[in-house]
Formats: sequence, C-alpha cells, structure tokens
Amino acid sequence: MFSRFGKKLLSKAKIISVATGLAGSYVCTKYVLDNHLSLHLPLLKPTHCLDAATIQTQKTARCPDISKFMAPPVTDLATMCANPDSIATKMEVMVMETQAKVCKAIEALEGDKKFLVDSWRKESNTGGGVTCVLQDGKVFEKAGVNVSVVYGNLSEGAEKQMRSRGKNFQRNSDGSLPYKGMGVSSVIHPTNPHCPTIHFNYRYFEVTSADGTKSWWFGGGTDLTPMYLDVIDAKHFHRELKSACDRHDVELYPKYKKWCDEYFYIPIRGECRGVGGIFFDDMDKPNAQEVLNFVTSCANAIIPCYVPIITKNKNKSFTADQKNWQQLRRGRYVEFNLVYDRGTKFGFQTPGARIESIMMSLPLTARWEYMHLPKLGSAENEMIEVLKNPREWV
Amino acid sequence: MFSRFGKKLLSKAKIISVATGLAGSYVCTKYVLDNHLSLHLPLLKPTHCLDAATIQTQKTARCPDISKFMAPPVTDLATMCANPDSIATKMEVMVMETQAKVCKAIEALEGDKKFLVDSWRKESNTGGGVTCVLQDGKVFEKAGVNVSVVYGNLSEGAEKQMRSRGKNFQRNSDGSLPYKGMGVSSVIHPTNPHCPTIHFNYRYFEVTSADGTKSWWFGGGTDLTPMYLDVIDAKHFHRELKSACDRHDVELYPKYKKWCDEYFYIPIRGECRGVGGIFFDDMDKPNAQEVLNFVTSCANAIIPCYVPIITKNKNKSFTADQKNWQQLRRGRYVEFNLVYDRGTKFGFQTPGARIESIMMSLPLTARWEYMHLPKLGSAENEMIEVLKNPREWV
Repeated sequence: MFSRFGKKLLSKAKIISVATGLAGSYVCTKYVLDNHLSLHLPLLKPTHCLDAATIQTQKTARCPDISKFMAPPVTDLATMCANPDSIATKMEVMVMETQAKVCKAIEALEGDKKFLVDSWRKESNTGGGVTCVLQDGKVFEKAGVNVSVVYGNLSEGAEKQMRSRGKNFQRNSDGSLPYKGMGVSSVIHPTNPHCPTIHFNYRYFEVTSADGTKSWWFGGGTDLTPMYLDVIDAKHFHRELKSACDRHDVELYPKYKKWCDEYFYIPIRGECRGVGGIFFDDMDKPNAQEVLNFVTSCANAIIPCYVPIITKNKNKSFTADQKNWQQLRRGRYVEFNLVYDRGTKFGFQTPGARIESIMMSLPLTARWEYMHLPKLGSAENEMIEVLKNPREWV
Repeated sequence: MFSRFGKKLLSKAKIISVATGLAGSYVCTKYVLDNHLSLHLPLLKPTHCLDAATIQTQKTARCPDISKFMAPPVTDLATMCANPDSIATKMEVMVMETQAKVCKAIEALEGDKKFLVDSWRKESNTGGGVTCVLQDGKVFEKAGVNVSVVYGNLSEGAEKQMRSRGKNFQRNSDGSLPYKGMGVSSVIHPTNPHCPTIHFNYRYFEVTSADGTKSWWFGGGTDLTPMYLDVIDAKHFHRELKSACDRHDVELYPKYKKWCDEYFYIPIRGECRGVGGIFFDDMDKPNAQEVLNFVTSCANAIIPCYVPIITKNKNKSFTADQKNWQQLRRGRYVEFNLVYDRGTKFGFQTPGARIESIMMSLPLTARWEYMHLPKLGSAENEMIEVLKNPREWV
C-alpha cells in the first residue's frame, strides 16, 4: 500500500538522489526528484518501517494498530504508545482509522483504481500528514482524504482570529504559545452528475497557555452537494447524521444542521453550497472524552451516509447537458472553497502549509459560463431553488 | 449590436412581462424572465434609444459620439454633454472606447462569433455597466470586457482599506462620503494553449470630503499569462508597454513592471501568474489630465501588445497534453483571481455588486490535479521556472 504513490510519481519524474534514514519511529526513503522537490516516501510495509525497539514497544504497550492505517501516523509511535489515554493520541488514531475506512469504501465503489498514499512532513519538525488521492476514476473524478497533525507556536494572526471567537490565551515570557492541531478532511467528487459530492472534516485543537492550562476544542461536519435534487437521498443523508448526533444529545442535530446551512452559504451567489448536513466549531463541553465520542460517532456515520447514495446513482445514464451542469456547479464549489472556507483560509495563512493537501479539495475540472440561467421548471432550476431556500430534511 | 445579448438570452428563457420606459436618457425595455431575474436590455440602436431632447443636445453640444460604443454609457448623456471637460466624463468616454476597440479586435481574430452585449444597472441608482462576453469561440475560449461606472457612499470597510494606503477623507455630518469609481477591465482566455491569456484594467476613483475637496486617483495595468514561454512574444509585449509608458516618463515602466511582478504573485504557489506587464495604483501626480493621458496611452497599447501574438499562434497545432497543461494553468488563474485579486475582492465586498460581471474574468474551464509535476527540461517546466523567477524582458 505504501508504495502506490511512489510508483506512480517516480514513473513521471527522474530520481536524482536517494537517501535512507530514520524519521520519527520509522525508516523512510527520501527521493530528490528532477523537479527539485524532495519527497519522503515510506516505501515499506509499516512493520518494516519501524525500528526493532518500536516494534517491541508496540507488542508490549497499549499501542495503536497502525497496520490498519493508510500510512504510519505523524506522531512518533513511541509517544503514542506512552500516552494511550491522552485525547491527542485517541484523536490521531480516530482520524487515521477514519481515513483508512473511507479510502477503502471509495476503492470498493470505484473498482480497480486505488488511492495514491502520500506521507509528508513539514519542515523544522512542526508536524505533517498523510494525503490520499484517487483521481480520474470511473466512479470518482477526484477523491481526496487528508490527515494532518501540526504543532508549533500560534501566530498572532491565528490567535487574534481565535480571540474573536471568545478564546483567551497567555503567551510565555518568550512570546511563544504552543499549539497542536489535527484532523481528517475530505472532499469526494464523483464522475456521474447524479452522484453528489461529499465533504467532511473532523478536527481537534489545543493551546497551552503560560500557566500550563490547556484550552481545547473540537470542530467538524459532514455535508452533501448534489447537482440534481434527490429528496430521498437528502433525507437519508440527514437521517444518518441525526441518528449519530441523537446518540449523544438530541439538541445537537438541529443546532448543527442550522450552523451548516449558515456556514456553507455563498453570499456573492445568494446560494448554499449544497443540501447541508452538520457543522460545528469550538465544541468544548461537557468534557474532551465526551466530545471525542461525539466526533467519533459523526465520523462513523460518513460511510452509511454516503455509500448507499453512490451505489444507487453511479450507473445512471446522463446527458452532455447534465455533465455541463455538473461542471458549472463544480465552479461554485471552487468559489466557496477559495473565497469562504475557514479551513482553506487557515491553510493559506499558515507558514509552511502544504498547498497540495489544501488544494486537494478542488475538483479535477470546473466551468464558468457567463449568465448561465436554468429554465423555470427544469431539474437544474429545482436544485437552485433548494440552494436558495434550505429545507428541513428530517 | 444592442440586440445580440437579448436574442441569445431570450431564446433560452420565457418572457413573462415586458415593460418599456425611460431610464436615464434612453428608452430601454425591461424583461421579466421566467427565472425571476429582470433585465434591462436596450434593444434599439443608440440614437433610437435617446429621447428627442437628448438627441438635440448631442447635436449642439460637445457630446461623446456614443454610436462607437458597444452600448450607451452608464452616465446620463445630458450630464456628459454638460460636463465635457470633467475628468470623469473623459475617463468614461475613454473606457467605453477602449471596450469597443478591444471587442472589435477580438471579433476580427475570432471570425464569425460576436460578443454578447449586456447593459446592466445597479439598484437604487448607484451606477451600472456594460459587460461584453464572447464564449466558446474557435479562437477564444472566453473573452470578457467589462465597463462599470459606480457611485454612492463609501462603506467604512472600503474607507479603512483606502486609509491604510495613505488616503484621508472627512465624512459629512450625516456620515456620508460620496464616491465615484469607473473602469474597464478584461480577461481574454484563448482556446489554443500556445496563445497567452491577457488581462487589463484601467480605473479612476474620486471621493468628495465634507469640505468639498475631491481626492482622485487612477490605477490599472496590463499583463500576460502564457502557458508556454515564447521569449519573442514576452519581449514584444513588454516593449509595447514600455514605449507607451516612456512617452510620459521613462521612470514609469521599470517601476510599474516591478509592481506588476509583485502584485500578480501567488504566495501559496511561490509563482507569478504570468510573465507580467505593468501594474499601478493610487496614481495622482502630476495632475488628473496628465495621468488620464498616461492611462489612455496604456489603454491604446492593449491591441498592439496582444493582437500580433494571437495572430502568430492561433493556428498552431497542439496535443492533448498541451491542452491539459493549459487547463491546469487556468486553475492557477482562478486561484489568483478568487484569493488575491484586489478588484475581485473589492467587488465581493461591495453591496449590490454584479457578481456575473466580476466572475466574467474566470476561464470557461479549469483543472486541478494533485501533485502535477512537470519534467525537468520540459516546456512546461521552463514556464514554471520563469514564473518562479521573473525576468527583465526589455
């Protein structure tokens, strides 16, 4: 599994130098490519990537089973094994598991094509991630599932942005303000215009103030963007999300459904991006374990939300006009992601952020026509009406 | 000419009601379409659009010859005739003339296909514009040339942004701060990947403070975005711009060439958008007439800059891979326009801004592939090298 990306990429580029060394707890191989980019590609199976001491640790301690992941986690395995009860460890395991489960579900729908798996590390030891992308498939035009785990010191800009949301931190005397952030995020763009796009993101953030107090919060959401309205699919999607939320608190779904409609709104178009779902941020009550349990329920709902919709629609026939309409809606998706999306903007402002993992959410292709106006009574216009007037689905 | 847009659009949408009335100085016909949008479409020739008194005025006073324009200007013709020496009148005439000249030059290169001409007015009498678009042509994938003339009261956000650039205004006792802005802007995306995209924009802004003092400035620029480097074309383009600048002050071209490289930079990609050109803002010296003369020289350079490059390259053959590369570069163009471009962002923040005229700059189609890496020594990589390291061309 770990060599997929390597093979594909290396066939396109000439390797100039190869060096092997120990990075974190696993051996990885560094390729310097002819385009002057260097990539860390763990080309061996996970157990072979680990040193003997780590393998021993993993056998004897409460360590995550990383063989189920798409690639080794960003955090050093020894650190994870030594802190099995920390929320950060549990969340990192959860996002890695979610990534693997979603990628496998998408591969099962796709047929033969597999995800490229790309492990990357930021410079100067400030974290990294695992980006999985399946592109130009039969069922999926582009599917990206990204995990990132980043740490360092919060910039003043980011702090200011968080203060405006009611948070309050104290910097250390040297001006530093350590933070750790992690999450899984994904956008899946199917090929067939009758198959909707799904987006989800579940993330955890902690900031340690000068006196040692740790502020933490979770955020996330799952939302659906159809090109054509299918009321049954929209209801199914929302019902699954509601049932995941209700297991924790029946007040969550209505609140987060409304937040989703408000967040995924494109003011310049006067439309929502899709039929919504759930969205939340700054969730820090009742306690970290409870919120993690809630977020895990939401993450576990992704596959039952989405897979039945794709199975139902992926083989439907479609016309050139319907494909054209899909491409125009892809253009709107690009507009939302580049102009409004908080995660994308945070990425743009983060020094050393990995641009390819941020832009992974963009569709393979998109289209903008001047003054495209769907006819009254058409299926395209019916979709627009719902985007302009969000509905209750359950 | 004025009926082109009407015919095309009306054939797609059912007219629900038609009303005819006097708007500004010309008669226009209001169509309420089945998509609930209403459009003001002056369907008659300009002279037939004017009332008898205005026609009389035009004959006897120093009035602009609006028959050369793509549509009647936004400002009431009687007002323009009464103020022939005001900079605002002269600038509006200049941008309307530039629009018409560029559209005609593009039509001549294209062959049969003509521009759609769309006259629009903002609500509550705060200006409007003329948007001309040629889409899905043989030579041009999408060409848009937009004139807008807007006025009203400056929002606090816009004022703050201008203050940060060193400007200082006093609001009236009722809080109002009248402004007038106008300009021509255009992006032309050719079909052939050997033909570069051109963008230009020339604009004038004035703000009247409480004591009656008028602050004014001009801004603008012209820049080229090739998909493949052609050194001869890049040199030709810059030489024409330099010669237009040198006619006014030999210090202008080097200064504005550098500003262009800095402005059209995509930090998240570490690349310039193209091979540059000129860019400037807040130009308010030595005096308004002199700056208008300079801006007019720049506007007059657009056709000699661009037309020979398209004539030379438009019939070159190209491969599917070259077309794919063009689409990936179109994706970068979208990124710059939506994330960084000052004009686009100003538009997004302006209440009642006309979104279709802002988004007109986006290409018809664009593409994003994960980790697309051109090979060392390839023509694609040669282009990237220049975008990462801007050159001097003259």
